[in-house]
Amino acid sequence: MTNTERPLAISAPEPRTLDLIFSDKARGELYAKYEIVEADPENIAGLGDDILGKARYIIGQPPLSADTLGRMPQLRSILNVESNLLNNMPYEILFQRGIHVVTTGQVFAEPVAEIGLGFALSLARGIVDADVAFREGNEMWGGEGNTSARLIAGSEIGIIGFGDLGKALRRVLSGFRARIRVFDPWMPRSILEENGVEPASLSDVLTQSDFVFVVASVTSDNRGFLGADAFASMRKGAAFILLSRADVVDFDALMAAVASGHIVAASDVYPQEPLPSDHPVRRLKGFIRSAHRAGALDVAFKKMGDMVLEDMDLMDRGLPPMRCKRAERETVSRMRSKPVSVN
Amino acid sequence: MTNTERPLAISAPEPRTLDLIFSDKARGELYAKYEIVEADPENIAGLGDDILGKARYIIGQPPLSADTLGRMPQLRSILNVESNLLNNMPYEILFQRGIHVVTTGQVFAEPVAEIGLGFALSLARGIVDADVAFREGNEMWGGEGNTSARLIAGSEIGIIGFGDLGKALRRVLSGFRARIRVFDPWMPRSILEENGVEPASLSDVLTQSDFVFVVASVTSDNRGFLGADAFASMRKGAAFILLSRADVVDFDALMAAVASGHIVAASDVYPQEPLPSDHPVRRLKGFIRSAHRAGALDVAFKKMGDMVLEDMDLMDRGLPPMRCKRAERETVSRMRSKPVSVN
Amino acid sequence: MTNTERPLAISAPEPRTLDLIFSDKARGELYAKYEIVEADPENIAGLGDDILGKARYIIGQPPLSADTLGRMPQLRSILNVESNLLNNMPYEILFQRGIHVVTTGQVFAEPVAEIGLGFALSLARGIVDADVAFREGNEMWGGEGNTSARLIAGSEIGIIGFGDLGKALRRVLSGFRARIRVFDPWMPRSILEENGVEPASLSDVLTQSDFVFVVASVTSDNRGFLGADAFASMRKGAAFILLSRADVVDFDALMAAVASGHIVAASDVYPQEPLPSDHPVRRLKGFIRSAHRAGALDVAFKKMGDMVLEDMDLMDRGLPPMRCKRAERETVSRMRSKPVSVN
Amino acid sequence: MTNTERPLAISAPEPRTLDLIFSDKARGELYAKYEIVEADPENIAGLGDDILGKARYIIGQPPLSADTLGRMPQLRSILNVESNLLNNMPYEILFQRGIHVVTTGQVFAEPVAEIGLGFALSLARGIVDADVAFREGNEMWGGEGNTSARLIAGSEIGIIGFGDLGKALRRVLSGFRARIRVFDPWMPRSILEENGVEPASLSDVLTQSDFVFVVASVTSDNRGFLGADAFASMRKGAAFILLSRADVVDFDALMAAVASGHIVAASDVYPQEPLPSDHPVRRLKGFIRSAHRAGALDVAFKKMGDMVLEDMDLMDRGLPPMRCKRAERETVSRMRSKPVSVN
Repeated sequence: MTNTERPLAISAPEPRTLDLIFSDKARGELYAKYEIVEADPENIAGLGDDILGKARYIIGQPPLSADTLGRMPQLRSILNVESNLLNNMPYEILFQRGIHVVTTGQVFAEPVAEIGLGFALSLARGIVDADVAFREGNEMWGGEGNTSARLIAGSEIGIIGFGDLGKALRRVLSGFRARIRVFDPWMPRSILEENGVEPASLSDVLTQSDFVFVVASVTSDNRGFLGADAFASMRKGAAFILLSRADVVDFDALMAAVASGHIVAASDVYPQEPLPSDHPVRRLKGFIRSAHRAGALDVAFKKMGDMVLEDMDLMDRGLPPMRCKRAERETVSRMRSKPVSVN
Repeated sequence: MTNTERPLAISAPEPRTLDLIFSDKARGELYAKYEIVEADPENIAGLGDDILGKARYIIGQPPLSADTLGRMPQLRSILNVESNLLNNMPYEILFQRGIHVVTTGQVFAEPVAEIGLGFALSLARGIVDADVAFREGNEMWGGEGNTSARLIAGSEIGIIGFGDLGKALRRVLSGFRARIRVFDPWMPRSILEENGVEPASLSDVLTQSDFVFVVASVTSDNRGFLGADAFASMRKGAAFILLSRADVVDFDALMAAVASGHIVAASDVYPQEPLPSDHPVRRLKGFIRSAHRAGALDVAFKKMGDMVLEDMDLMDRGLPPMRCKRAERETVSRMRSKPVSVN
Repeated sequence: MTNTERPLAISAPEPRTLDLIFSDKARGELYAKYEIVEADPENIAGLGDDILGKARYIIGQPPLSADTLGRMPQLRSILNVESNLLNNMPYEILFQRGIHVVTTGQVFAEPVAEIGLGFALSLARGIVDADVAFREGNEMWGGEGNTSARLIAGSEIGIIGFGDLGKALRRVLSGFRARIRVFDPWMPRSILEENGVEPASLSDVLTQSDFVFVVASVTSDNRGFLGADAFASMRKGAAFILLSRADVVDFDALMAAVASGHIVAASDVYPQEPLPSDHPVRRLKGFIRSAHRAGALDVAFKKMGDMVLEDMDLMDRGLPPMRCKRAERETVSRMRSKPVSVN
Repeated sequence: MTNTERPLAISAPEPRTLDLIFSDKARGELYAKYEIVEADPENIAGLGDDILGKARYIIGQPPLSADTLGRMPQLRSILNVESNLLNNMPYEILFQRGIHVVTTGQVFAEPVAEIGLGFALSLARGIVDADVAFREGNEMWGGEGNTSARLIAGSEIGIIGFGDLGKALRRVLSGFRARIRVFDPWMPRSILEENGVEPASLSDVLTQSDFVFVVASVTSDNRGFLGADAFASMRKGAAFILLSRADVVDFDALMAAVASGHIVAASDVYPQEPLPSDHPVRRLKGFIRSAHRAGALDVAFKKMGDMVLEDMDLMDRGLPPMRCKRAERETVSRMRSKPVSVN
């Protein structure tokens, strides 16, 4: 096989890099199987027709015009290595031609679910505050330190959103014999039931749970849908754990609900990132803070490269991609409103 | 049924109380089914022969002489509502007569396992330190805050000791797809395998794990069996989580291993409890501290009463107890060396 | 809401009927939410432009011309209530327009998996032959009747094909602690691993298994891919269980391998259906026969209607279908070669 | 170590043999670690005081008098390699001295559970009758052959008895998402709940189940406790699967209930074994027959030897046995009424 026989892939993964998303082994495989053309994402059109005419894949989501796409008759897929979809290419043309636009945000599901469970256990057992008190010589011993302690076993849990992240949460919760209710208006009941969770209304999830995990994406429809009323409807002492995007909650109302002692909370995301040094959440008791770190593990980024390789292998063989998530004609316009990737 | 027909149980649960270990509902059931004689634990012998002669159960572990036992021909069981066995009664006589000495320490397994997993996730993801930094305005955002972050999924886990606590740990870890090795010299290989864990040597558990959980009881044989060599043999950056008794480790060596940066650790137990205010572990970086709070939840204590009722019901019907754990002739002398209960 | 405001669905489910695929309750919901126009499948074009112009869904897969599709601007989905795709409509136009062609064959996965496990247990323990012998007074008692008996627990299992059926098989096998290898060239390794099975070559599946389940669809590529060499490579005494289509095996070679005593087998499918009364498989020892009954349970057909309703509900709300399986541009031509539905 | 330093074990496993219960490897280990004295089970007393005085273990359950036991001061355990306990030794002395009498019947749990599930699937799907019809050219194709077919998934299941066998059944049923109710009057509710099944009354188990599995041992109390009323109370078309002992049912009533078409059934055990050649069960439609073959697999017998070795190893080290099941002072007299072993 000569060099020119390898399928051609245009590399434009900015703001990520091939080094971030491919392990050494995977990058070796990428270069062995494909002719990789590293491109300036702002000037894909500047690549010659020789390259555009042969390109089978684009790794990244550079801006693309209808004209440029017209010069790429072999294109099979745009493998977006972020989680969000920018509105920078004519999706309708891509869907008509059957060019798959896929995303790799699923890699963050497992890390986010693990830290989410860590937040829940920390809130339930006061792990952070107990350690801080111990450092300062103010610890409470034995049962005296457990007046508000709770178990996850036997508790009722609510999950808002049941995409990859919700499924990963259910998995790490599977050893706890908890009752799990899920609110996800985009998901048929029977699929939730097959995943071993109970379909529920938002109201039931809020009012019947000891722990509420929010893993819903922001869409054009659900901005701020969890506000003061939602928090007031929760059980006294329940835990609210925010893992997706700050925009789905009214953050001030969340802080107020925690400040009042009605609920406790943890969050990985904020209305502004980074957050001003005088933001009141920094001093809020009953709140565990994490600086948008839930998903951004090296091991997760490296999985992106593996997914890209697995789907390119399927498409090389004339099969549809299965590993990454495909953008959908119906929802691409709603999802592309997401301002940033999960991490 | 007249009052006198109810079986008689002597109540001497000190240092615990019936109110601690029985929910209202369970205490109601206790008094409805049994004639309860509350007794001074230091003077069981002072109860008249009328009472001793009828007593079927003792709730608690008051000192008992051979003579007193001789006056209790109907005695079927001593239901010890602590976890340890004091050397304050002639066990040999009890075993000969088939009087079951049972303990209820199993109630702590679930709470200890949950906080143990909470410690592991906190160490893996830096939950405590990240929150403290955030409070102080020094937080690191996104991937920059994750340079030492790790997943439990896909990791290798070691558990030292596979009694009720080890089994509860395995259960809460079951959603993580981790490889779990167990060292427990008292446990046949095949039982470990049936529980879905791999039997392993102590050395393999120490050297092959990313997370090591210590849930072994202290016995007359294993005092300080985890020392400087053990910690040195662990993987760089691995987490050591101590949940049973401080006496199984050389605590100074543990602190040194953490101080050197070789491992991170969490502990619920200490060589002295409470700990002096100037103890160096209070300032040790890479260490999560908990003040013997892992098991002492109200919900756990209340389960003791439920277990006592379930086993008394079995024994009332001429069956052996199944719910509590029976003291064993072979090990009672080893286990009674335990200075305090799990909590 | 007036009648005319309900979305319009054309019903042409032949050879099935609405009564077969909808429970009373589901059919009630269907008629309440939609205006249903029952149509002659051979003459969809004959429906007036009034109906075609409003039609949002077609239930069934009647022949459709490009011209007829052109008269249906509101069409969102063709909900095929069989498992196969006939080559009777211009799929390329449908894909371009984003009209979802979906199938409901997934309903058969659970029934087929259950009978498949039933075949495996019957072969492993000689359930059929032992009962027949008992009827005739020739039964062997105790261990004497178990000379070729085997357990599934601790065995090695191979699955060929890992679509809905393979996943359902894995689920019913999950209580057996068996090692499961899967051969599926259309499926990325990592997805198999996430499902708790081991990706393997066809050769490994055949040579390393005590039980081989075949649940692969027939495609234009794999006709007869399991022949005399495949059966010869299997372990002596292993069980071969055919659940998808007879065309994936060389049926004569399968019978020969069983007749020779090298393997045992069960099959639900045959080269001809019905089978001539003198076909030699009828008398073959070591073979369990089932007359294409694995999936065709009423409870499965009724689930089709539920799936159709769930996906129409999603599409009514502008979301993509999730419950049924979508035909894929890449594979529709391969899959449509399947001559009959799973059942 | 010289030969005489090995602990001495008396071998009297009749009616079983060491070859049946030990694999080659295990028997090698047995002879390497222990001095084995093969004895006539009818004349243990005839062994000299030299042997009796040193004997640590007896493998088997030969008749033993108080006098003979008095000559065996080192005896730690009688490892009964059947499932039943004969009334041929003074148990009270054994319990007083703390000599463990253990049984190995647990080895049959897994094989019995697997064939039990095989019976259930065969009854639910008509596997046996469909194959017999196919042999004779009378098979029904597709849905026509499924008029009485049912799924286990989504069904309600009752288990009567929750010892090792009940637990093994629950395990093989774990992939089916069925609701499992258990009746076991010897078992505390909370243990059933921890095993993921619902404690229920006998009446609820009978009237609310689609499949009823009977795995209860015969005791002096429960002979024939399942009679005509029990069968009449079952759901029309439900399946009754008898796996323990025929004596727990009124077998004539069971046959009548099946003959009437009210229920279907399978049984591994019979009032007489072997059964007369003209017994009416042989011709009974709706009944699957198995000739006491459920447990007697070679692989199960070989596990007995492994269990014996594991427990002897624990006892050699001064620990109590954990692998085999101990006879209990309270129930030994009830259980020893069992006329034969599980297999």
